[in-house]
Amino acid sequence: MNKKIKILVLNGPNLNLLGTRESDIYGKKNLTQIVQQLVKIAKKYKIELEHFQSNSESSLINKVHQSKHIIHYILFNPAAFTHTSIALRDALLAVKIPFIEIHISNIYSRETFRSHSWFSDISNGIICGLGEEGYSWALKTAINRLINVDN
Amino acid sequence: MNKKIKILVLNGPNLNLLGTRESDIYGKKNLTQIVQQLVKIAKKYKIELEHFQSNSESSLINKVHQSKHIIHYILFNPAAFTHTSIALRDALLAVKIPFIEIHISNIYSRETFRSHSWFSDISNGIICGLGEEGYSWALKTAINRLINVDN
Amino acid sequence: MNKKIKILVLNGPNLNLLGTRESDIYGKKNLTQIVQQLVKIAKKYKIELEHFQSNSESSLINKVHQSKHIIHYILFNPAAFTHTSIALRDALLAVKIPFIEIHISNIYSRETFRSHSWFSDISNGIICGLGEEGYSWALKTAINRLINVDN
Amino acid sequence: MNKKIKILVLNGPNLNLLGTRESDIYGKKNLTQIVQQLVKIAKKYKIELEHFQSNSESSLINKVHQSKHIIHYILFNPAAFTHTSIALRDALLAVKIPFIEIHISNIYSRETFRSHSWFSDISNGIICGLGEEGYSWALKTAINRLINVDN
Amino acid sequence: MNKKIKILVLNGPNLNLLGTRESDIYGKKNLTQIVQQLVKIAKKYKIELEHFQSNSESSLINKVHQSKHIIHYILFNPAAFTHTSIALRDALLAVKIPFIEIHISNIYSRETFRSHSWFSDISNGIICGLGEEGYSWALKTAINRLINVDN
Amino acid sequence: MNKKIKILVLNGPNLNLLGTRESDIYGKKNLTQIVQQLVKIAKKYKIELEHFQSNSESSLINKVHQSKHIIHYILFNPAAFTHTSIALRDALLAVKIPFIEIHISNIYSRETFRSHSWFSDISNGIICGLGEEGYSWALKTAINRLINVDN
Amino acid sequence: MNKKIKILVLNGPNLNLLGTRESDIYGKKNLTQIVQQLVKIAKKYKIELEHFQSNSESSLINKVHQSKHIIHYILFNPAAFTHTSIALRDALLAVKIPFIEIHISNIYSRETFRSHSWFSDISNGIICGLGEEGYSWALKTAINRLINVDN
Amino acid sequence: MNKKIKILVLNGPNLNLLGTRESDIYGKKNLTQIVQQLVKIAKKYKIELEHFQSNSESSLINKVHQSKHIIHYILFNPAAFTHTSIALRDALLAVKIPFIEIHISNIYSRETFRSHSWFSDISNGIICGLGEEGYSWALKTAINRLINVDN
Amino acid sequence: MNKKIKILVLNGPNLNLLGTRESDIYGKKNLTQIVQQLVKIAKKYKIELEHFQSNSESSLINKVHQSKHIIHYILFNPAAFTHTSIALRDALLAVKIPFIEIHISNIYSRETFRSHSWFSDISNGIICGLGEEGYSWALKTAINRLINVDN
Amino acid sequence: MNKKIKILVLNGPNLNLLGTRESDIYGKKNLTQIVQQLVKIAKKYKIELEHFQSNSESSLINKVHQSKHIIHYILFNPAAFTHTSIALRDALLAVKIPFIEIHISNIYSRETFRSHSWFSDISNGIICGLGEEGYSWALKTAINRLINVDN
Amino acid sequence: MNKKIKILVLNGPNLNLLGTRESDIYGKKNLTQIVQQLVKIAKKYKIELEHFQSNSESSLINKVHQSKHIIHYILFNPAAFTHTSIALRDALLAVKIPFIEIHISNIYSRETFRSHSWFSDISNGIICGLGEEGYSWALKTAINRLINVDN
Amino acid sequence: MNKKIKILVLNGPNLNLLGTRESDIYGKKNLTQIVQQLVKIAKKYKIELEHFQSNSESSLINKVHQSKHIIHYILFNPAAFTHTSIALRDALLAVKIPFIEIHISNIYSRETFRSHSWFSDISNGIICGLGEEGYSWALKTAINRLINVDN
Repeated sequence: MNKKIKILVLNGPNLNLLGTRESDIYGKKNLTQIVQQLVKIAKKYKIELEHFQSNSESSLINKVHQSKHIIHYILFNPAAFTHTSIALRDALLAVKIPFIEIHISNIYSRETFRSHSWFSDISNGIICGLGEEGYSWALKTAINRLINVDN
Repeated sequence: MNKKIKILVLNGPNLNLLGTRESDIYGKKNLTQIVQQLVKIAKKYKIELEHFQSNSESSLINKVHQSKHIIHYILFNPAAFTHTSIALRDALLAVKIPFIEIHISNIYSRETFRSHSWFSDISNGIICGLGEEGYSWALKTAINRLINVDN
Repeated sequence: MNKKIKILVLNGPNLNLLGTRESDIYGKKNLTQIVQQLVKIAKKYKIELEHFQSNSESSLINKVHQSKHIIHYILFNPAAFTHTSIALRDALLAVKIPFIEIHISNIYSRETFRSHSWFSDISNGIICGLGEEGYSWALKTAINRLINVDN
Repeated sequence: MNKKIKILVLNGPNLNLLGTRESDIYGKKNLTQIVQQLVKIAKKYKIELEHFQSNSESSLINKVHQSKHIIHYILFNPAAFTHTSIALRDALLAVKIPFIEIHISNIYSRETFRSHSWFSDISNGIICGLGEEGYSWALKTAINRLINVDN
Repeated sequence: MNKKIKILVLNGPNLNLLGTRESDIYGKKNLTQIVQQLVKIAKKYKIELEHFQSNSESSLINKVHQSKHIIHYILFNPAAFTHTSIALRDALLAVKIPFIEIHISNIYSRETFRSHSWFSDISNGIICGLGEEGYSWALKTAINRLINVDN
Repeated sequence: MNKKIKILVLNGPNLNLLGTRESDIYGKKNLTQIVQQLVKIAKKYKIELEHFQSNSESSLINKVHQSKHIIHYILFNPAAFTHTSIALRDALLAVKIPFIEIHISNIYSRETFRSHSWFSDISNGIICGLGEEGYSWALKTAINRLINVDN
Repeated sequence: MNKKIKILVLNGPNLNLLGTRESDIYGKKNLTQIVQQLVKIAKKYKIELEHFQSNSESSLINKVHQSKHIIHYILFNPAAFTHTSIALRDALLAVKIPFIEIHISNIYSRETFRSHSWFSDISNGIICGLGEEGYSWALKTAINRLINVDN
Repeated sequence: MNKKIKILVLNGPNLNLLGTRESDIYGKKNLTQIVQQLVKIAKKYKIELEHFQSNSESSLINKVHQSKHIIHYILFNPAAFTHTSIALRDALLAVKIPFIEIHISNIYSRETFRSHSWFSDISNGIICGLGEEGYSWALKTAINRLINVDN
Repeated sequence: MNKKIKILVLNGPNLNLLGTRESDIYGKKNLTQIVQQLVKIAKKYKIELEHFQSNSESSLINKVHQSKHIIHYILFNPAAFTHTSIALRDALLAVKIPFIEIHISNIYSRETFRSHSWFSDISNGIICGLGEEGYSWALKTAINRLINVDN
Repeated sequence: MNKKIKILVLNGPNLNLLGTRESDIYGKKNLTQIVQQLVKIAKKYKIELEHFQSNSESSLINKVHQSKHIIHYILFNPAAFTHTSIALRDALLAVKIPFIEIHISNIYSRETFRSHSWFSDISNGIICGLGEEGYSWALKTAINRLINVDN
Repeated sequence: MNKKIKILVLNGPNLNLLGTRESDIYGKKNLTQIVQQLVKIAKKYKIELEHFQSNSESSLINKVHQSKHIIHYILFNPAAFTHTSIALRDALLAVKIPFIEIHISNIYSRETFRSHSWFSDISNGIICGLGEEGYSWALKTAINRLINVDN
Repeated sequence: MNKKIKILVLNGPNLNLLGTRESDIYGKKNLTQIVQQLVKIAKKYKIELEHFQSNSESSLINKVHQSKHIIHYILFNPAAFTHTSIALRDALLAVKIPFIEIHISNIYSRETFRSHSWFSDISNGIICGLGEEGYSWALKTAINRLINVDN
């Protein structure tokens, strides 16, 4: 049964501005709209979806810690922390929750320093530059993997 | 009407071995099975799907050239050519067909030299490490974008 | 009319110790004294001046977010975050408020790692090594530019 | 007399998980147990021991600031901030409290990026890979140095 | 007598698209038109001109091999193979036919990776960024050198 | 008394073209106009201001040599020599006259090679990207420092 | 019994020119002569020897694919592909046939770029600079290993 | 009408020694002979040709400045300044006169440091290693471009 | 029973000068005094302590070889060989005796080349910059580990 | 006649441990067994074989010096000195005795630092990763070359 | 007879300040005193000595050009041009006059950028850090070489 | 009085072969002849000269250690150890005896790896490429400095 399965959508710094900021790069939907769409998908599979966004590295780390034994999969858009936060990397390694790394824009067609991620090599997959749809595909992948695992 | 829309699935070197080779890295489905699944999805939207795999750089380049004015979107897994083929990059730039780059395995958790792609910065999105499902998400993204554009 | 113009002085980590810390490098005035001097200048031009210092990257990011549509210019001394915070860089890019980067000491005559700034290339000017006077010149430049623009 | 001497044990991000996380790397004792052991040693020498752990860079910086004129020595395990926090480095430089850098695991036998520390060159010594015992040796060194200095 | 002199114009990948592709970079003439113009020049000097274009590295290598003892000079535009093909470099070294390297566009004002050529250091001259005229000057240089040598 | 104080404004190559060249980068005022404005400021403080511009590295070096024991502060815009002239650096080190480095445009938001200066680490401050106003702030800083020192 | 054992000699680009090309570097024997000598050795051990040379990367890849379950050992001289072909590397990894890398000339005493091989780290041994004899030693090593393994 | 068109041949340091210096690298013609040949070509098209050679960077810069509004195209052999003079680069950028970069010898087959040019990326074409003929082809290209533009 | 346990203190080049050389860096105790202190500690635990110092890489290698099956733990200060001796590294790998790397001074606050150690990644812990006390802590760690293992 | 021919087998540091050390990497035969096998081969050709192993760089250098005019070929396994000893390189250059470099294990599939050899570019061939058989092939190559030369 | 032999002492930028500038680095003698001492030595050998100092790269180049066929040896202190002037390097290569490179101070114990010289690899010897005496030893070496050559 | 002054000539590996080895690089005199010449010079000034050559790094280190308080100046040709021996560098730093670094050949016109010296930055001068005469000039400089100091 899937009813206990819980997935966390974790969003990093500045993503609270989605929809208001550089919409040519990040799309026109705001974060609430994106999350609503994900909740719909999750419901179909009787999966619980939690969302957490913060501009604070320590809040994100604390959230990851608290997810241990509670969350089965994380959909993680680390935003600018992609390139700088080894502490978040270590948090994810410590709790051992599988996660998919998501980037709304194509980080490889932007500044060079955006090409390195502290998360890709320890992630269970990366989706990059597919806009807000990226979250949906990541969610569906996570569900497929979790349900397969549970069956 | 979508009936004229045509999408090309383009697979690079060694992918003909899928399903027989290092299945812990590349999954157990072979290429025919993956393509059949994609054809099913495409059919739902009345979209034509073509598949082409080659171990030859020039055959892939020629295929890209011939796709001009015929193909609306490419789903491209460049495999080992990801890291070496500027000629294929130039071919894609020349025909100006949008494409999504796909990798079955997570290239960032393997050897360092696999972290550089000659295609990511000119692609319209990247999916990496989601297994054969990656092709499905890429196809659906392409369809959404094409139909939205056409509507 | 200038009465609505508002300028934010934003100071990064450890700058709360100004005047008490390595005074040969950072000068003898403390932060309150520096701000008082800036307020005086601003008053002459009927401009409102706000000051915010924090050792927390997320507090600084939040302040930048809240400044959108309220603040017309930022005088920003990122201190140690100069060299590490892509999240703050992204915040400034997102709100599109012009800013001048200020360093009290000459960061180029110190350790090599202090020569790279995540802000210089997106700033509207840099003042470095002119001591606390640097804030005054930055403020005057900002005022000149804003009043010229408004006139 | 030693009774006024005060030593701070400062622990960085994710160390709150000690004992529960990758015990092959970080050992089986949790943080409370380690601190208790250190308190015992300190008591022998009539030295006061304070402990502070945080996942937040700014909390750690604030703690360092508040330690000025109060703390005589810091035993510092910067964890992931070892490799990223110039702001913490600057805080330690500003308050001029001597400190010993501690790593429970051998950071040199792990990923390459763990070989660079922003603290080693300004520390008064480094202990690395000796497990939780490393804290004891560091404490004893600090005590020896402080008592020698005071005598 | 010059009648036996034979010059090969060798064009690399994607150059079959000339005239149809990014005409702001590569000019408006197609390959046939360029070759016709070169044939005209060659005829004046009773020199035979052969043209060969391929998107296949091995076809180009084979062509170079077959040119041994037959071709006196090669005008070579390696296109994307400029930056990747050591095998073509080796082929040219093996047959010891002098050649001039030609680039229609200025490869130095484009992406950084286009600044390195595997051919320049072993070529007998380089013409870059002079458009289709570059072929003419290269041809004339080759003719001058060959006829001088023969006389 | 300030009457003996003498400040040199030293301008490097191509700055004679100011006002006529790329005015979006370098502003619309020509060099004469900028200098006149500086002379006005200097007069207020009864300070003598000299101006010297040259496209010749050796003329600038000679000027620096002749300034020994005569000039108390240099306002120096090294222009392109910023990135190439160790000889000018040595000249400034030899005469030991304090100087402020000025750049009209923001050199950090231009080509990468403009990010390295042979002067910043030995300067007494840097102003960059504040337009022609940068000269005024530098002059005022120099005056403040000189008069403070003399008082 | 050894009669089923089959070894493939695989030669990369330009090696068809052996004996005619730069004989001071590559020796005077042509490829046919070298292969004949190897066939003789193989016959002694009742081992079947196949030879394949191509200037085409894809032909070599296809040959490697077809060797799966048929060939027990490969003697591989990748020539110029040594330094460029990740696709061939992947092919060898995929079929998991052990191979010895052979270079006729000493690639370490030539241009710097010849010092990196995409094959050495996954090979079962390297012979370099021993001339055509290198093939014989490689063959004998392969035979020893295969017969030992089979016995 | 072309009669007003004026082209400058600009030669950098040590080129006054042409014909007397390392003739195997730089050819046997001296500079006067080369210029005479160019004057002949120019005359045919009723174009005025000016020549200027200097070993002094500032003289070359001054010449470039004076060419503004007078010269329509520059044929520029920067010689050793190719690799060192950002000031000359800036001069050419400032006057916005199109120019072709010429090197008599093949700079790519000489010392590594000769492979970087401060001019190639801002030039309108490069000719390298074609000997003194390079000047002729550059002149003819310039004429073609200018007359086409004027027509 | 611990009586059979034997620990080797191994000191590299120039450490025979301890106490006489740069005492601000290396402390005032000479090697004999340090060893005596260690012997005392060892005796408490009925452990045999051997000391060996040499300026000769081969003598140190030979000592490591002879320690096989005799020595249970090595306390190793490789001194200058830290940065250069792969042969000593290989010797330690070959005999598989656990060891702690010790540096009296803080090698990270000295010249950059002292930051790389050929031993840290294969050591069982590193103590650096704790003066001669470092040996004591290393010895106690070794004893704890050995006795725990034996119990 | 071959009777005067003398070949030296020279083995570097830690190779005295062969057979006892990491046998999965270095094989199970000890050095005496390997040498005996080589002596057998040499005898067939009436060639004298000398063996010398040392952990000391200077002993190896001295041996090379003494070999001048006595030894006709060296089979050299420099072991760890491969990556560090320029002095041994210089010794071999000085005596001008041809030598083949041998590595028992595949140094390219181990740590990165093992990929650089100070000997390969001046050697007369390299055999790597063929186990103890490598010595036999090297010996046979040396013999072939020497006898050919003598005949 | 030596009477025709002529040696040029060539001094680069800022050396006119010798004796007045940073005397702890460059010594107390001025340039006239140094030259007088050299003239004395030269006279003993009936050799003519010429001295030339300039802060201008072009003056130094011109001097080198004029020395052709007149000067037999150059004693060259390129000062700051050591690190920047490829044009001077080319001038020396062009005239083919042997020269010894001299530095009064030890350029290797100063800033890192002073460790690279554009002249050392083409010089006939280097003297560095021996103070003004360096010129004398260079002169004597030149004389010995010239007289030996003439005898 | 100078009679107590003692100078050590210290020669590194392979220099025992001088005169017999690559005489085009290292000259024709052997070491004995060079030392005899130096002894003559020393005698003139009543200075004692000792000579020591070794191929062993540890012998050289021991010699340096023993020289403490006995030797006043060292003339040191580290030969191949120039590029590898930090242990020798440390020995020289420890005994604090001033030394001049000597190279017979011009190490800057040889292989790139010979351009880095572990001794130059801590030496009191460098002579390079002046042949055996270099020793004489170094000796004379040492004598001048010592006698000046003593007077």
